[in-house]
Amino acid sequence: MDVIELFEKGSELAYKSCIPHVSVDCVVFGFHQSSLKVLLLKMKGFDKWGLPGGYVKTNEDLNNAAHRILKARTGATDLYLEQFNVFGNVGRSEADMAHLPQRFWQRQRFVSVGYYALVNYGEITPVTDRISESCEWRDIDDLPELMMDHKEIMNSALHTLRRNINYTPVGLNLLPREFTMPQLQRLYEIILGKALHRGNFQRKIHSFNILNKLDATPSKNAHRPPILYSFNTDRYNEALQNGLKQDW
Amino acid sequence: MDVIELFEKGSELAYKSCIPHVSVDCVVFGFHQSSLKVLLLKMKGFDKWGLPGGYVKTNEDLNNAAHRILKARTGATDLYLEQFNVFGNVGRSEADMAHLPQRFWQRQRFVSVGYYALVNYGEITPVTDRISESCEWRDIDDLPELMMDHKEIMNSALHTLRRNINYTPVGLNLLPREFTMPQLQRLYEIILGKALHRGNFQRKIHSFNILNKLDATPSKNAHRPPILYSFNTDRYNEALQNGLKQDW
Repeated sequence: MDVIELFEKGSELAYKSCIPHVSVDCVVFGFHQSSLKVLLLKMKGFDKWGLPGGYVKTNEDLNNAAHRILKARTGATDLYLEQFNVFGNVGRSEADMAHLPQRFWQRQRFVSVGYYALVNYGEITPVTDRISESCEWRDIDDLPELMMDHKEIMNSALHTLRRNINYTPVGLNLLPREFTMPQLQRLYEIILGKALHRGNFQRKIHSFNILNKLDATPSKNAHRPPILYSFNTDRYNEALQNGLKQDW
Repeated sequence: MDVIELFEKGSELAYKSCIPHVSVDCVVFGFHQSSLKVLLLKMKGFDKWGLPGGYVKTNEDLNNAAHRILKARTGATDLYLEQFNVFGNVGRSEADMAHLPQRFWQRQRFVSVGYYALVNYGEITPVTDRISESCEWRDIDDLPELMMDHKEIMNSALHTLRRNINYTPVGLNLLPREFTMPQLQRLYEIILGKALHRGNFQRKIHSFNILNKLDATPSKNAHRPPILYSFNTDRYNEALQNGLKQDW
């Protein structure tokens, strides 16, 4: 089946089951080897990469559509997912679909609701589907050219994550279950976009009383093994209610 | 013209000029007599009150639609306006329109983009239009029954304002040009939903270096007149870039 036929099939399905003019785009963040990654895909017949996205079924709540779309891409349910902004400029999506026939669903104007997800990099497997040839993690500092306004959507998600860092369980969702203090600090530094003082960071994090220090694994050589931590989920979630640094 | 005819006219206009399934709802906040107010309207033929809202024209950016809708309600341009959330559950808007014929525009499912505006209470005049019988300020602590999910939309706006208070020029937009320190503190207390210590509040606000202290007007009696302040807009906006209390 050639690319136009593939999109025609998608178009017919969408006309039957989705509400027009509304779409969902997802910025999926993962953390791996000291870098923040985002999940991108390359659709067949397109040179540029894009964010995973989709449409809203006529009988489906908007938030459920976002969960469904991400499950299809990652296999994961119960992802940490937050709406952050809506992208509704005239012409934002139309140009990159201009090679498709005018009657196709994909040619219409879409107002797209942006969601960001925080996922544990090691626990999900990017999935390609019928219309995509690749679905991969890419470093946020080394992105390929993105289609439509997806670069703006990505930056807006990162801006929101930065601004809401004190209300968002970034560590809990982005780090493995057991992690070191340098890993946690590195994550905060990437999201905040600046270097943090090691002593101050540790003092602040410990002051929230949200970490469990794990027993050290005995080491066979002379080096002291790194100290591992996990989150005390109850206390973490409780602390986030008021914001980790909210102190008016 | 009876109510059904009014809505039929609106329906015909919308079918001609707007994109289906997308709507805008605006939570307009004002501050008056030590209370936070929200602008509500009562449409003809409805018992419940609602937020000012409308639809998006086919050739209009989403954010411009919100500005246009608010200009029609308040006469004001250049309002401080922020998107905060999208409300997209199945059935959220349909039930309260069930008395209208099925073919009417208003009967379809709408995914509604929520905006909040911060306005200077004294500078705008609520406007009724063809389909509304009242448009009034109401105290957020004393709201009438609201239609659809507008109570949820209102609460979500207030929650966002609370969370983003350190990034949002609440004082600049909600207070008159000249104000007293107790007025500013009261505004923060209402938005944050808690009492603040007077001395701490003043110390923090002064530490941001965003206030101009105005020369006292000579008083004819023995009482000292209250000290008036205005904002140094440049320094205020600069301080908001990093958040007033951001200190990771």
